[in-house]
Amino acid sequence: MKNTTFGVNRIEAFSDGVLAIVITILILEIKSPELHVQTSSVAAWHALVALAPKFASFALSFLFVAVFWVNHHRFFLLVRRSDWGLLWSNNLLLFLLCTIPFPTAFMGDHPSNPVAVALFALVLLLAGLAFNSLWRQARRRRLIDESVREEIVNAAIRRGLVGPAAYLCASLLAPIVLPISWVIFLVVPVFYAWPTKAPDHNNIKGD
Amino acid sequence: MKNTTFGVNRIEAFSDGVLAIVITILILEIKSPELHVQTSSVAAWHALVALAPKFASFALSFLFVAVFWVNHHRFFLLVRRSDWGLLWSNNLLLFLLCTIPFPTAFMGDHPSNPVAVALFALVLLLAGLAFNSLWRQARRRRLIDESVREEIVNAAIRRGLVGPAAYLCASLLAPIVLPISWVIFLVVPVFYAWPTKAPDHNNIKGD
Amino acid sequence: MKNTTFGVNRIEAFSDGVLAIVITILILEIKSPELHVQTSSVAAWHALVALAPKFASFALSFLFVAVFWVNHHRFFLLVRRSDWGLLWSNNLLLFLLCTIPFPTAFMGDHPSNPVAVALFALVLLLAGLAFNSLWRQARRRRLIDESVREEIVNAAIRRGLVGPAAYLCASLLAPIVLPISWVIFLVVPVFYAWPTKAPDHNNIKGD
Amino acid sequence: MKNTTFGVNRIEAFSDGVLAIVITILILEIKSPELHVQTSSVAAWHALVALAPKFASFALSFLFVAVFWVNHHRFFLLVRRSDWGLLWSNNLLLFLLCTIPFPTAFMGDHPSNPVAVALFALVLLLAGLAFNSLWRQARRRRLIDESVREEIVNAAIRRGLVGPAAYLCASLLAPIVLPISWVIFLVVPVFYAWPTKAPDHNNIKGD
Repeated sequence: MKNTTFGVNRIEAFSDGVLAIVITILILEIKSPELHVQTSSVAAWHALVALAPKFASFALSFLFVAVFWVNHHRFFLLVRRSDWGLLWSNNLLLFLLCTIPFPTAFMGDHPSNPVAVALFALVLLLAGLAFNSLWRQARRRRLIDESVREEIVNAAIRRGLVGPAAYLCASLLAPIVLPISWVIFLVVPVFYAWPTKAPDHNNIKGD
Repeated sequence: MKNTTFGVNRIEAFSDGVLAIVITILILEIKSPELHVQTSSVAAWHALVALAPKFASFALSFLFVAVFWVNHHRFFLLVRRSDWGLLWSNNLLLFLLCTIPFPTAFMGDHPSNPVAVALFALVLLLAGLAFNSLWRQARRRRLIDESVREEIVNAAIRRGLVGPAAYLCASLLAPIVLPISWVIFLVVPVFYAWPTKAPDHNNIKGD
Repeated sequence: MKNTTFGVNRIEAFSDGVLAIVITILILEIKSPELHVQTSSVAAWHALVALAPKFASFALSFLFVAVFWVNHHRFFLLVRRSDWGLLWSNNLLLFLLCTIPFPTAFMGDHPSNPVAVALFALVLLLAGLAFNSLWRQARRRRLIDESVREEIVNAAIRRGLVGPAAYLCASLLAPIVLPISWVIFLVVPVFYAWPTKAPDHNNIKGD
Repeated sequence: MKNTTFGVNRIEAFSDGVLAIVITILILEIKSPELHVQTSSVAAWHALVALAPKFASFALSFLFVAVFWVNHHRFFLLVRRSDWGLLWSNNLLLFLLCTIPFPTAFMGDHPSNPVAVALFALVLLLAGLAFNSLWRQARRRRLIDESVREEIVNAAIRRGLVGPAAYLCASLLAPIVLPISWVIFLVVPVFYAWPTKAPDHNNIKGD
């Protein structure tokens, strides 16, 4: 063994922690609205309706991070060892995911502003590329469990480019036909929600 | 085995993380009040008394999330494997629980506003239904440990409908007799606090 | 075995999560001060000095929660199984610890206000009593590892009453000689920092 | 065995939790800017550009905490047992790391204020010393796995003094040539990013 490698338990634990926190603090950006007439149902409804873009932005980010977690989870079902390089690629991914509360809040505040929407798309694009790089490194440095067939890894890497391509479109289309960007934000996570139809290999960790 | 299944350790860890964060950041919605006379005990008392509805809303949400955690804990004592469908149902449940800081703050700010109280009830109702769906899926797709008798699962599923029914009442009663909704928010968690009187099976995980 | 009991791993994980979050979000109550002259060192120093009471309140709370974590850690080194009652006593303890950011911020904002200081003492007092109750239940319901000698448990329970007694004094003395309360807040955690001098038993978990 | 020692799993879990939270809540200090013209791309760009120092400060802190996590991770790959002293030294380190959101926000708000920059350097300096003290205690009290050669530990301890020395320079240079401090904040973490080139020992935990 040429490189220093080590188990992935603590990387998984740290990543789980970061993703769990990111996904949970997103809601903190939606502040409880003040009402002029405290007990008026009409005033409360109007206040909630005015928050709809912030809720939509929150829900999209939640979905995105949840899909990332699911695919990250599956990645580390296949990867059994890490080296420092993989660890730092994972940290880069976590960095990008940690910034998400900002573009989420910005797009929620300004849902029809092209720059806000493009920024949101850009962060998702970079996170997608960082995750793809994680897969490539694991393949190149042979960190994936040997019982996993190579075509499964190759398919995952190919599949992983769909998202960044779509987010690039969302970013470029934001100044032209902004609503399409919002549709892309919804469709891409759904595409990635089910990482695998068949079992990846026979002796999955955690059994 | 037809479906892709995998161990539940990381789902438990992620869920624990999310629930621990939700339950802990609830307090961030209660801001330290400013006092005009810095050292006046009377001013400080009045400021604290004015925060009483926010504390009550915080305490109810804490209780609700804690009860969810206890029942979620017990659920994964019985479920030994997950598939992607169960994982996403769990994510839906986490999504609903993650939104709780918002209705908590909204109801804390406007404790006698019917819409604020009905919104709180609605989120609890949806979370209860999502959890019930988790049980049903686990039963249907045979993800529950085989040593658990079927009537235990059926009883848990039946019991799981009491909460949503009560929260539906709380939601509908909010515009008519609002205090009853607050009583329901307190009583339902107490009903669910003790998931089981007898051991569910003999070889529980973690032994 | 009369009661339903189960392993404590997930209770430990959940408690660790909650305590880690509480201890980390305390800093969020200290806001970055605005400076009128952006680059003036003097203005920056004055702004920092004005935050000294908030830092002191933050540091005391951090110390308190850290000491709780250490003693909680040791408690679950000795307790190997839990029942629903112990789990709920632990949730009560977590509830009290989760509220700490509020009295911390309140006392940090109003360090010489007797009510703010008494409230801080009251929360610590209640948390100490809740932890003591955890020990008593574990002893009464025989959840402690059998290899632990009874006098170790009895000593821990007796020792656990020193804190609540001191915090009761701090609470009562706040309106009379307030600085003594601050001294108590510092001294009690130091008293509890070292849970044990000798090993509690021979086959500690985690070996 | 003279001292009380115990496994390090829960210390690792608690530290992971705290570091994951610190690294994730840093973004909460960057608030979504308000725009006077909601849909103006120009206004949005200007608002984002104005936030550049806050982003830079956020990114530096993220990098710093990530590097700490990596080195902390490696430390506990070598340390197999803890005593109360090591646990409290770890708590001191966590305390310093928990304060980071404050100097990060302060330096992000006032990037050219010498006091803000020196304060940031001071916190990193103290955290570096606290981590170095952790290594020294582990060596002195023989808590490091016996299969680890002594020169590896000694090299780690020597290497651990580079950071504090550099941060001392950054702190002292802040009032004179402030940009050098920012360069130091970037260079030091890069220096520590790769803890080891060769495996530390043969039977690393987690295998």
